Amino acid sequence: MNTYFLITDGMVFICFVWQIAMIILFGVFIRYDEESDTHWIEHRRKKNISTNLENDFYYRYPSFQDVHVMIFVGFGFLMTFLKRYSFGGVGFNFLIAAFGIQWALLMQGWFHHLDEHDWKIKIGVENLINADFCVASCLIAYGACLGKVSPVQLMVLTLFGVTLFAVEEYIILELLHAKDAGGSMVIHTFGAYYGLTISWVLYRPLLSQSKHLQGSVYHSDVFAMIGTLFLWMYWPSFNSAIADHGDGQHRAVINTYLALASSVLTTFAISSISQNNGKLDMVHIQNATLAGGVAMGTASEFMITPYGSLIVGFCSGIVSTFGYLFLTPFMEKTLKIQDTCGIHNLHAMPGVIGGIVGAITAASASESVYGQEGLINTFDFKDAVANRTVNIQGGYQAAALFVAIAFGLVGGALVGGILKLPIWGDPADVNCFDDDVYWEVIVFFFFFF
Amino acid sequence: MNTYFLITDGMVFICFVWQIAMIILFGVFIRYDEESDTHWIEHRRKKNISTNLENDFYYRYPSFQDVHVMIFVGFGFLMTFLKRYSFGGVGFNFLIAAFGIQWALLMQGWFHHLDEHDWKIKIGVENLINADFCVASCLIAYGACLGKVSPVQLMVLTLFGVTLFAVEEYIILELLHAKDAGGSMVIHTFGAYYGLTISWVLYRPLLSQSKHLQGSVYHSDVFAMIGTLFLWMYWPSFNSAIADHGDGQHRAVINTYLALASSVLTTFAISSISQNNGKLDMVHIQNATLAGGVAMGTASEFMITPYGSLIVGFCSGIVSTFGYLFLTPFMEKTLKIQDTCGIHNLHAMPGVIGGIVGAITAASASESVYGQEGLINTFDFKDAVANRTVNIQGGYQAAALFVAIAFGLVGGALVGGILKLPIWGDPADVNCFDDDVYWEVIVFFFFFF
Amino acid sequence: MNTYFLITDGMVFICFVWQIAMIILFGVFIRYDEESDTHWIEHRRKKNISTNLENDFYYRYPSFQDVHVMIFVGFGFLMTFLKRYSFGGVGFNFLIAAFGIQWALLMQGWFHHLDEHDWKIKIGVENLINADFCVASCLIAYGACLGKVSPVQLMVLTLFGVTLFAVEEYIILELLHAKDAGGSMVIHTFGAYYGLTISWVLYRPLLSQSKHLQGSVYHSDVFAMIGTLFLWMYWPSFNSAIADHGDGQHRAVINTYLALASSVLTTFAISSISQNNGKLDMVHIQNATLAGGVAMGTASEFMITPYGSLIVGFCSGIVSTFGYLFLTPFMEKTLKIQDTCGIHNLHAMPGVIGGIVGAITAASASESVYGQEGLINTFDFKDAVANRTVNIQGGYQAAALFVAIAFGLVGGALVGGILKLPIWGDPADVNCFDDDVYWEVIVFFFFFF
Repeated sequence: MNTYFLITDGMVFICFVWQIAMIILFGVFIRYDEESDTHWIEHRRKKNISTNLENDFYYRYPSFQDVHVMIFVGFGFLMTFLKRYSFGGVGFNFLIAAFGIQWALLMQGWFHHLDEHDWKIKIGVENLINADFCVASCLIAYGACLGKVSPVQLMVLTLFGVTLFAVEEYIILELLHAKDAGGSMVIHTFGAYYGLTISWVLYRPLLSQSKHLQGSVYHSDVFAMIGTLFLWMYWPSFNSAIADHGDGQHRAVINTYLALASSVLTTFAISSISQNNGKLDMVHIQNATLAGGVAMGTASEFMITPYGSLIVGFCSGIVSTFGYLFLTPFMEKTLKIQDTCGIHNLHAMPGVIGGIVGAITAASASESVYGQEGLINTFDFKDAVANRTVNIQGGYQAAALFVAIAFGLVGGALVGGILKLPIWGDPADVNCFDDDVYWEVIVFFFFFF
Repeated sequence: MNTYFLITDGMVFICFVWQIAMIILFGVFIRYDEESDTHWIEHRRKKNISTNLENDFYYRYPSFQDVHVMIFVGFGFLMTFLKRYSFGGVGFNFLIAAFGIQWALLMQGWFHHLDEHDWKIKIGVENLINADFCVASCLIAYGACLGKVSPVQLMVLTLFGVTLFAVEEYIILELLHAKDAGGSMVIHTFGAYYGLTISWVLYRPLLSQSKHLQGSVYHSDVFAMIGTLFLWMYWPSFNSAIADHGDGQHRAVINTYLALASSVLTTFAISSISQNNGKLDMVHIQNATLAGGVAMGTASEFMITPYGSLIVGFCSGIVSTFGYLFLTPFMEKTLKIQDTCGIHNLHAMPGVIGGIVGAITAASASESVYGQEGLINTFDFKDAVANRTVNIQGGYQAAALFVAIAFGLVGGALVGGILKLPIWGDPADVNCFDDDVYWEVIVFFFFFF
Repeated sequence: MNTYFLITDGMVFICFVWQIAMIILFGVFIRYDEESDTHWIEHRRKKNISTNLENDFYYRYPSFQDVHVMIFVGFGFLMTFLKRYSFGGVGFNFLIAAFGIQWALLMQGWFHHLDEHDWKIKIGVENLINADFCVASCLIAYGACLGKVSPVQLMVLTLFGVTLFAVEEYIILELLHAKDAGGSMVIHTFGAYYGLTISWVLYRPLLSQSKHLQGSVYHSDVFAMIGTLFLWMYWPSFNSAIADHGDGQHRAVINTYLALASSVLTTFAISSISQNNGKLDMVHIQNATLAGGVAMGTASEFMITPYGSLIVGFCSGIVSTFGYLFLTPFMEKTLKIQDTCGIHNLHAMPGVIGGIVGAITAASASESVYGQEGLINTFDFKDAVANRTVNIQGGYQAAALFVAIAFGLVGGALVGGILKLPIWGDPADVNCFDDDVYWEVIVFFFFFF
């Protein structure tokens, strides 16, 4: 009863307080940028922009919508695979993403887009994409905790996750000047270690009490495939959404498309030898097929070459599937990390691979391949970093990977500690993975015809 | 038997007659416009258009496809929530939308796009979007009648609905010169009152005979979430699809994105206090989370500011969820309006809010905020209305809202009367919400493994 | 046991060998084209291209993503309709599409895009679209074999299918210079006859042993509607994806949109008279509604007029639905062709209709309708075919249709022969349409609440 009391009050209280806080902060800080303001027409004239099409909206809106689908349908449905936690999977994903994007607009705005003249954050479509990206890291973290935490805990996880993300992103992109267009490091590595550490702090030794609810059933696996496929199909948009106009976006799409295709093949291969009788495991197909997209996040804009992209997908599909086979059970038993969705296999390891691939590809970039201007454009060797060499860039890329891991581990430990407080209405061990705790579920036979 | 006879004959007869009528009318009236005609290349040269990209196709096609998904998957799957009416939900939605868009191209063409020289309607991508918009109002009306009407009745509802829509739209957009880019008034308010009035005329006092079929089951609720999420994600495209090129589309997206995010939070909050033990209700999550998009339809292009958008979403989420809690039962008991999907809560009230917000925002627009040119562009203060002030514009916006409501009520009463005739093969009370009446349904156990 | 052994080994071996082969061949042959290479900026300057937007990426990427969704979600979910073969439907579709697109990039590259200077294939977004198109033909063929073949057989089917496709496409598009933007002939006719012939060679006289698994259940039909609707909604993108910039893409969208709407009406009409009591059949709605899109593939770019498009959809919806009613049973009984998804009705007949419509429309094209430049642009009457008349073009279009059919029949017979070898681990008759052979399926009651 007490638990329920807390849940009820917590949800209402937090949703209202936070949403009102968002309204106030948006009122103080957020304004339209020059491309979404009615003064655009004057801006166009002043800057001699010949057509409305040069509004960044037309460069980025299709990619934005694809990313948006990945966040809400992709992540949401991927988490419907549990037999009795589909409402929680897709529903809480919806809740925390909707909250997170607002907070992300503020946090990322303060760090990256604060106008020095009027101290306002000017937003446009690129900010919306970045907010979606930022929230993705928290949804990844949710994957480790799926079924074991309350919605209030998830909102706290998201509040701090977005905050940490913004700082980490600032360090990696602005201070280290590392490149990470698709967020192998910034989004996936950080999000995964953040979630895994939280899950480690919240370890439930008696979780086996709800073991009968931990698996999937036939049709929840088909629902989850909706999530998988929308993530898989739109991942080229994810990795190219904020890439450079022109060849940058174009190349990021090709690289990601190829890496994803490649990891499908190796996932099926490994999955088929893993089981008795060579049967395939839906868990692998739902997850490890996406590893190529994660691993191509950092280097998507680089001249990694089409076959290089295939190699990245090849390796990450193998690593990810083996992760599901051996690492997840090992982590649960030995390291006491209960990782419901296997985010270590889908996001952490491929994310780290992506970071390493990015560092190596950057360090081995050359003017003969990129062209002089191409090299400068791709790595933004301008202003403060005008004299940086590709070798040094590679070093900074590697440093960025460590920053992402460190933020995940330390941030996760802190937030995990907060979430361990007995005030958040988390479910009892026996009620984990059960929608019935937080949702009105109709007790009824499904099919009578 | 007689009923079935009518259904059979009705479907075949109406589908064929209508489709042949469409072919003839299209033959007489519909032609490609200058941007979809092979003479485009000459048109380009004549108008000195430098690039193919200036073809409106490239400004609007991505938004069109998003809107298209909302119409067919969004509305369609949102209506699969009933445990035994998923075929009817998604299938009849498909049927009437496919019919309606053809009729809409004609009706809207006659009112808005008739070429004075040759009396032809010239169509391009914007017409396709508008046809989808027009049909949306009939699909909203379907929501009130879901499970209680025959497909033939739905086609009649759509035929008249599209006709009424075109007239109403003409009055609102052309005569009153009101702005309504996302159709809070034109689409949602009209469609909802149209459907509710029809449902009121078709009141079934003994509907409780099929009460056991009125609810959802676990997996039909997950199916419905597919509809919810595609509506939610693509609503920014809906509200920006026919907005002004450049900043207009850009701003409409930002405003809608924020309003939607905000209404998710308040929907979860209200839903959690509404039930025993603070449990969430899937009906609210599936519907009220969308209220922000509806309510942002009219003002999406205006400089409502980002925090203004959040406030609109905040309020409409609350109003909509409370509607599901208190108004729907009240309307059913006292007003004798049986509203299967709760369109009063999702479309009528948020639509009216949207109309009011639009009127207020228009009336309070100023040159200091919009800039001189921006103000003229946003409200199209040109030609006949070149001297209109924002205050007067606000008044016309309010008048438009009443036109939309009036068309819904009067039109719904008339069409409801027609649909009450005992010739349309509507299901008996006991057969409502049952696919078995209109579909081959395999009587079979679902899971035997 | 032996069967399983073969399956296991086959999957691993083939996936690895093929993926490694792909990496090597991509390393040797595939490079970024000038629009996805970092040298784009220099290319722009050289060619005096004023803006990044002129990068083909911005013309085609939204369409590409829509096509991508059709391939993976559209075809994938359309094949989930079987009650116990949903994993195989969506999963193997995923596997062979991911493999096929890689092989297609190579095969199509060698035939169409081989740079004469350095013997490399330069790829950009149009190649990605074409690879998706190419794979579509193999997925169509899969539809005939669904549930009766092993994943290894499917991969062999795809390997040869893509190869045949590339040759056939080269003959039709390059040698005959026929137009086929949406692939009525190249994709649908070829793919369907390829699959049907394979199915004929692999005829299983005792397939009735798994008859109890051949049908759908309520919810698998709803899953299949996801596939249907995404195919239906995005078909305008399919038929316009590689059409000419500007009016070509624009017109292809309008034509396809209208043909599809029209075939929905006639499908519902015919379906309602086909059953006892006028009930609708989900199989028809899931498939025949798409016939208009298939039949509009060749003529989508032509000035077929809006009402012409409606007529095409009208007829193909009727033909396709009647096919499901009469031809599929006839073919199974008399011709010994077991066509699980009815691809003969959805792809073969509408594809042939599309080819004929294309030939007639081309032959009747005129300068008065197209304009002089428009005619040249639409049919590419340049270089070697500068003097071709529309009548001759019509003849070549007809010839192209025969090439597509011939490649399907002969190719299918050859590949069917290969697939008949008893080394591919195909399921026993009694195990057809059963996921349990190739997938870990949890034997568990689904709903206990």
